[in-house]
Amino acid sequence: MNYESFFAEYFPFWDKLTTTQRKALCDDTTEITYRKGHVVHDPNECTGAIVVRSGGLRTYFLSEDGKEVTLFRLYAGDICILSATCVLRAITFDVMVEADSDSECLLIGSRTLGKLVEESIYVKNYALELTASHFSETMWSFEQILFMSIEKRLAIFLLDETARRHSDTLKLTHEQIAKYMGSAREVVTRMLRTFSYEGILESGRGDIRILDKTKLRKYL
Amino acid sequence: MNYESFFAEYFPFWDKLTTTQRKALCDDTTEITYRKGHVVHDPNECTGAIVVRSGGLRTYFLSEDGKEVTLFRLYAGDICILSATCVLRAITFDVMVEADSDSECLLIGSRTLGKLVEESIYVKNYALELTASHFSETMWSFEQILFMSIEKRLAIFLLDETARRHSDTLKLTHEQIAKYMGSAREVVTRMLRTFSYEGILESGRGDIRILDKTKLRKYL
Repeated sequence: MNYESFFAEYFPFWDKLTTTQRKALCDDTTEITYRKGHVVHDPNECTGAIVVRSGGLRTYFLSEDGKEVTLFRLYAGDICILSATCVLRAITFDVMVEADSDSECLLIGSRTLGKLVEESIYVKNYALELTASHFSETMWSFEQILFMSIEKRLAIFLLDETARRHSDTLKLTHEQIAKYMGSAREVVTRMLRTFSYEGILESGRGDIRILDKTKLRKYL
Repeated sequence: MNYESFFAEYFPFWDKLTTTQRKALCDDTTEITYRKGHVVHDPNECTGAIVVRSGGLRTYFLSEDGKEVTLFRLYAGDICILSATCVLRAITFDVMVEADSDSECLLIGSRTLGKLVEESIYVKNYALELTASHFSETMWSFEQILFMSIEKRLAIFLLDETARRHSDTLKLTHEQIAKYMGSAREVVTRMLRTFSYEGILESGRGDIRILDKTKLRKYL
């Protein structure tokens, strides 16, 4: 693909860059397709910024004993900067990023990105503004995890997913739902069983069919 | 006090401002002393940025049913931007800020700050960089809340506080400790009783005396 024309549309700072800077950015960009479940970024690397072209990524915290808590998810058109935090001094934590589904992405190398952040206040501003958006999304997740009942969180999750996928059947295992919600599989299974008992949904092997959204909304 | 000379030292963007902008910033700054426990900022207002000169502030989430979770604390020399999030479009959540102890602060009005953020990319950059630092501090707290055992978190908290206050006696109620840690008072009381039983500390009315730091460090 032609990175130059794509970036000219995508990056608000494009017209502030010199020809050399633009070329450097394009030269350090790679088209990559990540398979579902692939770990795109882990805290040992400084991978770079990732533009999602199709599919989706999930950012999450991983504890020493393997517990996962999802911060936020990224869809087509989004860009992830938490996979390039080495370029921003103010960010002192690191997260994991994994492909939620098969995802076509553009990877912008952290070396060039770091150089541009140093050279151009516009690029730095863009990266920091992205970080602030990621902060907002993370706080939304954490508010749910810290304060909301599991019933309400599961209801929100199921309604969001049916809306996003334009389908009342969700191809998701209990394990996956638990990961997205930062909860335990057993808890999700128990709650899905309750919903199923109330006629809200049917839960099969690897998929969930929503039968009664009106009843599900009562949990909001 | 002379804001002009203070700000010239404090703000890295000062030399990028025009004389008019500098004057506007000084004119919209107020010296305020907040009493301990005073709610300095709540989500219904856009209070402004707060420079802490002495004492300390605490930022926290408040749930509908009154549960509190501390994001981070600010000490002398720090500046809080989450009390002026209306000036940053990328921040879509809001928090509470309260005085941890009697605190002398400078309050910079959000109207002038918002105007400068629009006018000057250097001011915007500064505000966003602060936001990114707040993000890092928040993640540090949340990692503890989500993943660490209560024993370990309490041990870290007590060791940090004795170091910060240069004193092995901490004037803190169980309620206050619970708030800082985003935990329940009952849980903190139970854990302090265990530590006390093990000879690590003595817990009285409103104060805690650390007796054996070596034993306490074993919980890290």
